[in-house]
Amino acid sequence: MFTRRSILGGAMAAGLLASSLAAAVRFDRRKPGFDVALATGEVTPIFVDPADLAGVRRAVSDLAADIGRVTGRNAEILSNDGDLPPRVIIVGSLGHSPIIDRLVAAGKLDIGDIRGKWESFVVQTVASPLPGVREALVIAGSDKRGAIYGVYDLSRTIGVSPWYWWADVPVTRQDHVRVSYGRYVQGAPAVKYRGIFLNDEAPCLSGWTTEKFGGMNSTFYAKLFELMLRLRANYLWPAMWNNSFAEDDPANPGLAEEYGIVMGTSHHEPMMRAHKDWTDRRPHLGNGQWNYATNREPIRQFFREGIERNRDNEVIVTIGMRGDGDVALESTGGLKSDIALLETIISDQRDIIAQTMGRPADRVPQVWVLFTEVYKYYDAGLKVPDDVTLLFADDNVGNLRRLPLPSERGRPGGFGIYFHMDMHGGPFSYQWLNSNPLPKIWEQMNLAHQYGANEIWIANVGDLKPLELPVEFFIAMAWDPSRVDKDKIAGWTRYWAECQFGPDHAEEIAFLLSRYAKYNAWRKPEQLRPETYSLEHHQEAERVCDAWNQLVERADAVNAALAPDQRDAFYQLVLHPVRASANLTNMYVAAARNARFAEQARASTRAEAAEVRRRFLYDHALSDYYNRQMAGGKWNHMMDQTHIGYFDWYPPEADIMPPVTDLDLKADHGFGVAIDGSERSWPGFYLPPKLRILDSISKTPTYIETFPRGTDPIAVQVTADRPWVLIREGKAFSSSPLDRRFWIDVDWAKAPAGQSVALVTICDDRGSQTVEARLTAIKATPSQAKDAQGAFGGLTGAFSIPANAFRRSIAVDGVRWEAIEDYGRVKAAMSIFPVDAHSFQDPAAAPRLEYDIFLGEAGKYHVLLVTSPTLEVIPGRTLSVAVILDNQTPVVHGVFTPEDRVAEDFLGDRHLPNTANNARTMRFVVSSDRPGRHVLTVAMIDPTVVIQKIIISKDEPDDSYFGPPSPSMPFEIT
Amino acid sequence: MFTRRSILGGAMAAGLLASSLAAAVRFDRRKPGFDVALATGEVTPIFVDPADLAGVRRAVSDLAADIGRVTGRNAEILSNDGDLPPRVIIVGSLGHSPIIDRLVAAGKLDIGDIRGKWESFVVQTVASPLPGVREALVIAGSDKRGAIYGVYDLSRTIGVSPWYWWADVPVTRQDHVRVSYGRYVQGAPAVKYRGIFLNDEAPCLSGWTTEKFGGMNSTFYAKLFELMLRLRANYLWPAMWNNSFAEDDPANPGLAEEYGIVMGTSHHEPMMRAHKDWTDRRPHLGNGQWNYATNREPIRQFFREGIERNRDNEVIVTIGMRGDGDVALESTGGLKSDIALLETIISDQRDIIAQTMGRPADRVPQVWVLFTEVYKYYDAGLKVPDDVTLLFADDNVGNLRRLPLPSERGRPGGFGIYFHMDMHGGPFSYQWLNSNPLPKIWEQMNLAHQYGANEIWIANVGDLKPLELPVEFFIAMAWDPSRVDKDKIAGWTRYWAECQFGPDHAEEIAFLLSRYAKYNAWRKPEQLRPETYSLEHHQEAERVCDAWNQLVERADAVNAALAPDQRDAFYQLVLHPVRASANLTNMYVAAARNARFAEQARASTRAEAAEVRRRFLYDHALSDYYNRQMAGGKWNHMMDQTHIGYFDWYPPEADIMPPVTDLDLKADHGFGVAIDGSERSWPGFYLPPKLRILDSISKTPTYIETFPRGTDPIAVQVTADRPWVLIREGKAFSSSPLDRRFWIDVDWAKAPAGQSVALVTICDDRGSQTVEARLTAIKATPSQAKDAQGAFGGLTGAFSIPANAFRRSIAVDGVRWEAIEDYGRVKAAMSIFPVDAHSFQDPAAAPRLEYDIFLGEAGKYHVLLVTSPTLEVIPGRTLSVAVILDNQTPVVHGVFTPEDRVAEDFLGDRHLPNTANNARTMRFVVSSDRPGRHVLTVAMIDPTVVIQKIIISKDEPDDSYFGPPSPSMPFEIT
Repeated sequence: MFTRRSILGGAMAAGLLASSLAAAVRFDRRKPGFDVALATGEVTPIFVDPADLAGVRRAVSDLAADIGRVTGRNAEILSNDGDLPPRVIIVGSLGHSPIIDRLVAAGKLDIGDIRGKWESFVVQTVASPLPGVREALVIAGSDKRGAIYGVYDLSRTIGVSPWYWWADVPVTRQDHVRVSYGRYVQGAPAVKYRGIFLNDEAPCLSGWTTEKFGGMNSTFYAKLFELMLRLRANYLWPAMWNNSFAEDDPANPGLAEEYGIVMGTSHHEPMMRAHKDWTDRRPHLGNGQWNYATNREPIRQFFREGIERNRDNEVIVTIGMRGDGDVALESTGGLKSDIALLETIISDQRDIIAQTMGRPADRVPQVWVLFTEVYKYYDAGLKVPDDVTLLFADDNVGNLRRLPLPSERGRPGGFGIYFHMDMHGGPFSYQWLNSNPLPKIWEQMNLAHQYGANEIWIANVGDLKPLELPVEFFIAMAWDPSRVDKDKIAGWTRYWAECQFGPDHAEEIAFLLSRYAKYNAWRKPEQLRPETYSLEHHQEAERVCDAWNQLVERADAVNAALAPDQRDAFYQLVLHPVRASANLTNMYVAAARNARFAEQARASTRAEAAEVRRRFLYDHALSDYYNRQMAGGKWNHMMDQTHIGYFDWYPPEADIMPPVTDLDLKADHGFGVAIDGSERSWPGFYLPPKLRILDSISKTPTYIETFPRGTDPIAVQVTADRPWVLIREGKAFSSSPLDRRFWIDVDWAKAPAGQSVALVTICDDRGSQTVEARLTAIKATPSQAKDAQGAFGGLTGAFSIPANAFRRSIAVDGVRWEAIEDYGRVKAAMSIFPVDAHSFQDPAAAPRLEYDIFLGEAGKYHVLLVTSPTLEVIPGRTLSVAVILDNQTPVVHGVFTPEDRVAEDFLGDRHLPNTANNARTMRFVVSSDRPGRHVLTVAMIDPTVVIQKIIISKDEPDDSYFGPPSPSMPFEIT
Repeated sequence: MFTRRSILGGAMAAGLLASSLAAAVRFDRRKPGFDVALATGEVTPIFVDPADLAGVRRAVSDLAADIGRVTGRNAEILSNDGDLPPRVIIVGSLGHSPIIDRLVAAGKLDIGDIRGKWESFVVQTVASPLPGVREALVIAGSDKRGAIYGVYDLSRTIGVSPWYWWADVPVTRQDHVRVSYGRYVQGAPAVKYRGIFLNDEAPCLSGWTTEKFGGMNSTFYAKLFELMLRLRANYLWPAMWNNSFAEDDPANPGLAEEYGIVMGTSHHEPMMRAHKDWTDRRPHLGNGQWNYATNREPIRQFFREGIERNRDNEVIVTIGMRGDGDVALESTGGLKSDIALLETIISDQRDIIAQTMGRPADRVPQVWVLFTEVYKYYDAGLKVPDDVTLLFADDNVGNLRRLPLPSERGRPGGFGIYFHMDMHGGPFSYQWLNSNPLPKIWEQMNLAHQYGANEIWIANVGDLKPLELPVEFFIAMAWDPSRVDKDKIAGWTRYWAECQFGPDHAEEIAFLLSRYAKYNAWRKPEQLRPETYSLEHHQEAERVCDAWNQLVERADAVNAALAPDQRDAFYQLVLHPVRASANLTNMYVAAARNARFAEQARASTRAEAAEVRRRFLYDHALSDYYNRQMAGGKWNHMMDQTHIGYFDWYPPEADIMPPVTDLDLKADHGFGVAIDGSERSWPGFYLPPKLRILDSISKTPTYIETFPRGTDPIAVQVTADRPWVLIREGKAFSSSPLDRRFWIDVDWAKAPAGQSVALVTICDDRGSQTVEARLTAIKATPSQAKDAQGAFGGLTGAFSIPANAFRRSIAVDGVRWEAIEDYGRVKAAMSIFPVDAHSFQDPAAAPRLEYDIFLGEAGKYHVLLVTSPTLEVIPGRTLSVAVILDNQTPVVHGVFTPEDRVAEDFLGDRHLPNTANNARTMRFVVSSDRPGRHVLTVAMIDPTVVIQKIIISKDEPDDSYFGPPSPSMPFEIT
């Protein structure tokens, strides 16, 4: 049988999945090995000891079914070790599986490198393991989850995606499944607890679970736990928007324990209690106040019940206390007394834990979450016991706020990170689609890893869907960050695409996956506005729409090429987000054109209004298909989130179409002219049109657009009075075919040297109306042209340099600027490695990048470094960087200076636009005493700065989102 | 025959028109007199000497025709004094009319009180003036215009409106016209030159003159000159937007001279040349630059031609020089050298004038206009000869910038004012309808008069129409300011209405005329935006719309009651501006509702979008009727001005509908609730709804609105859990009948004393959705209630005090606060009289107003004085005022402090919003150490401050346009 998906590239997959087994699984018989299934239809049974842990036994039943998904016949599960067949798969956990322990004792199974380790396993083929058994494939876990992960490792490597149910990924049928003889070991994960937080779960997850499961009950959680285990996650904060994990379905906690999921509660729900537990019984609890100062005993009792009902479960207890709901603690009147109260609370909580659990508190995992305002107590000196894990929250949009200092790192409880891929709250909500590109997650979580915050990583994943890709990446990275390094992200994405869709389109699908998230992170869909991208400058909005529309074309092409049974998965994982995001951007840009065209009195204003409305309806249709058609309506309500028309941090109650205007149009109202670089139009604006100056080094053409102002069409001609002016018609950026664009360029061979002026004349064919625009062209002298060769810049205008387009990189003491591929707005950003390098004092002797530039004139220049909005993760480090022109004195700027610390920090007024822009622009001024070629140096001061691009401008830079595109790649976005 | 219009109220009209003749003209025979026309149809002929001035003879032909308009038979014009009939009207100017001179010599005509006076005339009945003549009505002018004004005085008094042609005012037919025997004298005007400036004349005046006259030729100007003379204007700056008075039709200058119009050119067109004269021949004039430093000789020649062709005409020569077109002078590099250049220019100009006119320059009237940037040269010491009139320009929106200092007043050339009723330029354009209420014109021009700027008053009147009313008022006031005092403005308006429409509806029409202009001056139509008036606070937008809609109802009622032949005049003078302005405001407010309702997820969002579109189309229909239907299309193009969708200072090329949005609506989406005082809605907003606190002193009820969120209707009930809560349904401020409003009030008799809380519950009839809103009510104690009696204020919330609602007014040294009726936003504003009073240093001993107020709590209060945006007309005067609480230290604030001078001045960043708001809010803070009754004193420091209302608020005042309405008149706008 021809299979769409042949085997995974073994070595690569092994590296990316952190599974050596992947390289050993084969679907052919060319090499000898252990047959899991034969082409004859025979399927090898699985033995698991009835005495083994329930979670292991349950996972085995999944493996048996997974083998059935691959081969067409489920594996038989055996429970009598006295009657094993000649070929058998044996699964068990050390210390709980007598048969495994026997094999170890007999020296047939080597567990030396996993014994005592956390969540480790070995997969080993064993010849003659037991009497009557010729060969066995043994999957042995160092503990419960070790065994379970081992089982699912086999499932995944034989072709069952963790997302087979959660994203309708079809399983490729195989005639023959064989594991090469050998021993395959998986050691302990880098991050001990790898978790997700189901949050902001209305209207999507709530609506869906209500319709499909009757609520967030154990039937639903069973599906979730299975997915988590297949992904090697182990820690969950359950949904809590008017949901109580333990009380909505009392079977839930026990089910988690059975599956092997470590339960917790969210950052503001201490002591294993849902906030809903409180609101449900508030009137019966003392004075009804969530206030430990006034209502201590009832709250203690409330806490105690939370621990009691989890006495036998593996949990991480959230300690501390915030306000009533996800708000700040009600203050006692001062920081000092608040801290004293919190210390009392935590002490009481630990007493309850110790008493109720029957063991010392330091033997029960606990976490204190530094979320939003909680940092202030920690910064002011609140100390929690060393065994409690300190969980540093990000800024709600994926920028870490704090990392352990070297002095803090020794504590046994360690540190962790609470990360957001979805947010309902400040600075703004984003709950719709995936806007979390993997390189950005990597860059920040790599800091966490390198700075030693490795006890817990937990991500707020909203409704879980449609964040499948970043969720898996986050957990994979937590498992083994060394396997997902910055140069391997693209490979990992390709591997992930292959897991879901096979190899044929994996490259293209990986491109689509990474690109739509990247574009969505330029500005999250919820933060898009008609005015986000510039209509006037650098064709910015046009290029952004083109980029999106190309993605749609490519996604449509893949969709057409896929097999029908792959299309549901493709729609939810790729096609829907690509189409919906592209549509959204096009809609907002059409709204921008509608508004601008109205000001220009373009008759096409009306066509743009229609385009906005069409795309608004199409957005609804796309969601509707996701909810009601895709997979037969299996995911109904999962795409219910409103996402258009945000006017505050919270989502609108209904999607609000971008407002559109209309004009009072006459039939015959002549024509109008708009020009590149201006919002104005002619006739109308009181100063005459001046076209952008063209120069023979920059060589960027300019354009004019002409349009009817009445409902009647009108014919125009564009001519110039100099032979060196080139005019050619292109496509106007408009929804109306009556709008026309004329590119104006210079034939530099014909143009005279120096500065020349031409007049471009636009007139209608009746000769009743004329607009004249002045064009200035500057032709470089031969020596200027020579000077500019290979340098960025030109005789006029602003220009950009991609951060990775340096001429020289100078490393110092092993510290150097390195590229992070596909990061942020650019193809590759530059950051300092190692990320925990010490700061440098002297920029001239620091790791640095040198860029060759050409300046048209002498004088002052603005140098803008477009960086990432990273935060002051190590208190006191200012995120400084230096810019040096030639051999001049370095210009050093820091972000977190004493004056700017508050404004640049979480929810600070400067950080707010930076989070929306997903970039921070640092402004420098340098002065050149002569035109011509120069060297611009960017020198490190502090690590954790990420530089994306450099913008250089004589005048105040144009008001655009990305700034000028770099001349070396004019049709790339940035 | 019954006449709609009986005679004008003689004494009153005489006062207002400044014509004693008005009281003498009768249309009955009850008193003896000179019969101009008899019921028999006999019409008395008019004699004018053929030797008299052409302009006088021409005016007589108008009089003859006017008599025909009144009686049905034109008067015969006689030119042979040897054959005069027994009863004759004799017209002539002293020194030019032999017959008049003979009558004077014969002692039959007494001209002692007009001889040698400017533009004066006498009308006298003379028995047996000449052999064979039994009686004569003699109209004798002290000079040419004196005679002409005398002629038109008779025309007007017999019932021919100056606007009979220009506004299609029908003339009431009279059987009998008689002038009581007597002598009626008109002395010289207060302002020597009373002018208008046709400006910003495209698209309206240009389009209209092109269609009706073939351009701005002498046929057109004859119509204009006639109107001007009938209005007693004498000075014109002709249209100059691509128009040249002297070159478009070479007959124009001579025609002006014949009619008796003194010609000038606009502020930036020196030496009787249109700017178009320059642009038409620029290439042939030296280097083509409008630069006296580089192109002196050609410009001198250009100047000389301008004077030459006006050698024999009565002109006022504009001198000085600005830039090329209506822009600032191109600088020579520094202020000093610019002044030196300007002094050279003016000296050269005067040489040319003297040489060309053949008399000393100081005998040719000249004007130097201090417009926009020109002030800076004057302030920096540029001196022009004393015989040149200095014309101070306002700030382009009717606020004078400068008045003569006592030290400046002696100069022979004197001072004048260039005033705007229409503007194309900064700070914003207003070119559509009349937005110039007469009390504001009076208040500012009264300053001009009292401070001695009386040589020239000239108003920029745009296209002339539709500014008929303020144009006539401006000229009437210039003629005799003492006759149009602040208490007579309403009477003058009533008189004007009676002149055009007769007495039956004059009172109502005067109300409509003054109100629509007043409302348009709250905020000029061009400056209206959807967000101008608050939807949330004080029902502001709702009350504004109600006010406009009531005007429309009343205008419609008058229209229905008028005779058909009056309706064209009524449409252009009253009905169109009322309907169009009302529609515009309603349209913007509907756009505001559309945007806000979208945020509240009201299904009625869609109805508001439809309402916006309907009103946008209606606006077009109203203009279309004006242009094409009214008066048979006589005024086509006069209403072509775009006026919707301003996005910069200049008008849009086409009217731009306010943008509207739509929602993605489900069928069934429950209901939502909005509340008075909040933009939010529930469910949706994350904090629970809190209704505005009600108190038993303020007694202002609050409300909630309920609305379906889906396309299906939904029934809701509103209930309260306390018996003292009153709920009654009113009308929601919405275009959808499905939106409902419920008024929430307190039955204070039932309410418990002190503060009480109730819960208002809104639920649907299926019980599937509930919203609860908390209501707090505060009932005053008896002593509080007693304390508050007769005072402004209450227990909670902000409150307003009308400036004229003082308890006591204390005058000092004859200086006092007096009311200006119907001024600005209020019924009466308070200002200092006499307007040129000296400033006071000590507020406690200054003229002051005392207000009784009641404060609910002790503590700091904001006191906001809403003043007029008057400017620092006397340099160094800060426009200070003081606020005093009880006997505390006065709080003094000034506007033009050294720090704020630039920002508060013309085009300054603080003056800009003040001009748009047509108000300046001065903020004070006072502190009360106890709640209860207090006295708030407003004390004068500087004159020319105008106070409209006082807003007092404990918290930062709500974001609304007018602030809280005063409790004494809750349904008035302010």
